[in-house]
Amino acid sequence: MSPMKYSAMLELIRQNKPLVHHITNYVTVNDCANITLCIGASPVMSYAWEEVEEMVGHAGALVLNIGTLDPYQAKSMLLAGHAANKFDIPVIVDPVGTGATRYRTDFMSRLVAEIRISVIKGNAGEIGMLAGADAHVRGVDSGDVKGDLRGIAQDFALKTGITTVISGPTDIVSDGSRVITVENGHPMMGRISGTGCMLTSIIASFAAVQRDMAEASTASLAAFGIAGELAAANTSGFGSFKTALFDYLSLLTPAELARDAKIRIL
Amino acid sequence: MSPMKYSAMLELIRQNKPLVHHITNYVTVNDCANITLCIGASPVMSYAWEEVEEMVGHAGALVLNIGTLDPYQAKSMLLAGHAANKFDIPVIVDPVGTGATRYRTDFMSRLVAEIRISVIKGNAGEIGMLAGADAHVRGVDSGDVKGDLRGIAQDFALKTGITTVISGPTDIVSDGSRVITVENGHPMMGRISGTGCMLTSIIASFAAVQRDMAEASTASLAAFGIAGELAAANTSGFGSFKTALFDYLSLLTPAELARDAKIRIL
Amino acid sequence: MSPMKYSAMLELIRQNKPLVHHITNYVTVNDCANITLCIGASPVMSYAWEEVEEMVGHAGALVLNIGTLDPYQAKSMLLAGHAANKFDIPVIVDPVGTGATRYRTDFMSRLVAEIRISVIKGNAGEIGMLAGADAHVRGVDSGDVKGDLRGIAQDFALKTGITTVISGPTDIVSDGSRVITVENGHPMMGRISGTGCMLTSIIASFAAVQRDMAEASTASLAAFGIAGELAAANTSGFGSFKTALFDYLSLLTPAELARDAKIRIL
Repeated sequence: MSPMKYSAMLELIRQNKPLVHHITNYVTVNDCANITLCIGASPVMSYAWEEVEEMVGHAGALVLNIGTLDPYQAKSMLLAGHAANKFDIPVIVDPVGTGATRYRTDFMSRLVAEIRISVIKGNAGEIGMLAGADAHVRGVDSGDVKGDLRGIAQDFALKTGITTVISGPTDIVSDGSRVITVENGHPMMGRISGTGCMLTSIIASFAAVQRDMAEASTASLAAFGIAGELAAANTSGFGSFKTALFDYLSLLTPAELARDAKIRIL
Repeated sequence: MSPMKYSAMLELIRQNKPLVHHITNYVTVNDCANITLCIGASPVMSYAWEEVEEMVGHAGALVLNIGTLDPYQAKSMLLAGHAANKFDIPVIVDPVGTGATRYRTDFMSRLVAEIRISVIKGNAGEIGMLAGADAHVRGVDSGDVKGDLRGIAQDFALKTGITTVISGPTDIVSDGSRVITVENGHPMMGRISGTGCMLTSIIASFAAVQRDMAEASTASLAAFGIAGELAAANTSGFGSFKTALFDYLSLLTPAELARDAKIRIL
Repeated sequence: MSPMKYSAMLELIRQNKPLVHHITNYVTVNDCANITLCIGASPVMSYAWEEVEEMVGHAGALVLNIGTLDPYQAKSMLLAGHAANKFDIPVIVDPVGTGATRYRTDFMSRLVAEIRISVIKGNAGEIGMLAGADAHVRGVDSGDVKGDLRGIAQDFALKTGITTVISGPTDIVSDGSRVITVENGHPMMGRISGTGCMLTSIIASFAAVQRDMAEASTASLAAFGIAGELAAANTSGFGSFKTALFDYLSLLTPAELARDAKIRIL
């Protein structure tokens, strides 16, 4: 993966404007729509059982985000996931709050078992819970257990075949064979609502044009992280930071992505 | 329709602050609430079957937007639509995604058949589908089929009695007898999420004070378009553009609306 | 309550980052999440019957906001409220639109009867309806009936044991024994969507670290009002004002809160 590849992927998104179908929470859904547009893709949100499979048929990628899961939406996600598998569309999963309640943990187990997932993206606690790691992983800052987290990501990817992304001060990507770290980003990204969800939408946008899911995820982390760095450098309060995050991602050029990405393949 | 009328309508909204009842999608609902306030009206969102008819009774206009339609909301829309018809309150419909799935297309057919709709506002593909135009209209840029779109809008308005708005680089309004174009706006408005939905909320705000639906729609397109031009001239990224769009609409004076509206009655 | 106490409370929120569980409307839910982060607490939104009680168990306070109440959510609120009472977590209620429909008014009566509520926060009309005050209170500007509103707040608090907050040009807080006014704030706060809901989230954040609910509410009104004053002084349009409101609250220091709070204990 040379930096040039990342810039080519970003160019491809902006040329093809792939449709990214979301079934997601009601808290950050607007942020997901706008960040998808900022990276150059086209968002659609739809969850009615009557149409969700047909809508997936138009899409280049599917996001399933369980941030405000309820039983209606849970069935929508399964219907959409099966349809995406049938049409061979990548499924990108954000297991928000896995570990916080049995309901979310159980649903994630079911999703992993029933649906062929391309990428799963969570924080250390969420991925740790999914991977069955010791409970002490929950809520732990990834900075404290860096070595373990890489192992957890790689083991989970190997066991499940799902490209695994652990976001944190140092982001980790593994598809089982490779382990990659991304050092872009800024702590401010953790202080506003929705950046985790937005990242998932960006990964789906890259996944719609790049079938190597580790590459798609790595490019996403770098692009979003660079936008976060620029936003933090040019604002102070939380409101302006969020506005600037959309601005800098929408203005990010393929050349800047290639130049400023801080990626290490381990 | 002289420019003075548009300024008088805007003044009337800001004096009367009409209540605009929305049943709308969960993606852009906050944008709809805020844009309604920016133009000077007052938004309310409510969809529970237990209260939706009673809430309509307080309103000056009703927005039905099918962006994330589900069966519960579909019934809410029918209940609210019938109540609005009973109370003689204008019903403004945004047929988001009509043509993308059979579910949406079928529901729109039902809505058009059962509810007396005042204005329907969509892009070329959505209105084309509703009008039963050739499938090639779907997704086609209105710039390519300008002549046809005017005809489609006028024919659909004539056939249904619904004032028809096709948004695009050149916006088209027809109530069957008149065909009007509005040249205000900026391509940036198509690059962020929610501008289509916001336009519908603005049309409803004007419709609450002006019973000539072609005039209400035309004023809305001009007002929102002028705000978009100013926002685009003064920002670059998507986040700042959106913030500025709210700013300029909230600051738009009746005199500026009369001066800068680019309207042609054909 | 000396100004120093308010600054100590704000410091405590930022140290402890209490989890504030919301069951709230879909219009302003993102604003609630972000304002909770701006004050220094941590938001979580969850309403599925399967998990809502378990999620309450992690929280430091619970927000119940009926802005877009439906039957599913109504049951979620009762489940969460009972769980909060069991765990002795403060319950902060925003009775949005009480009086506008029988459905909302009836549900609020049930909530007040079944759940031990810590704070209820509404405008003059909403609290007036709840208190069974004469119908003319509905929609009346609190400036016109200042004397009555203080009495209504105190009487309702005495009768129910619920700390009662009436927001308006002069905000009123009463726990039955004390009546407190807060003069911070700016009319612009009433011109954008969501500030009422945001205030409720802020009260819940303070309530999670301060068990004297009148103090928690008073500190919230002052903190949010100061942010509103600064935002209004530095912006003009509605979009920029909203962004600045988040900015100034996120940047508000405990010392500034103590210095600029305009509080009177009557």
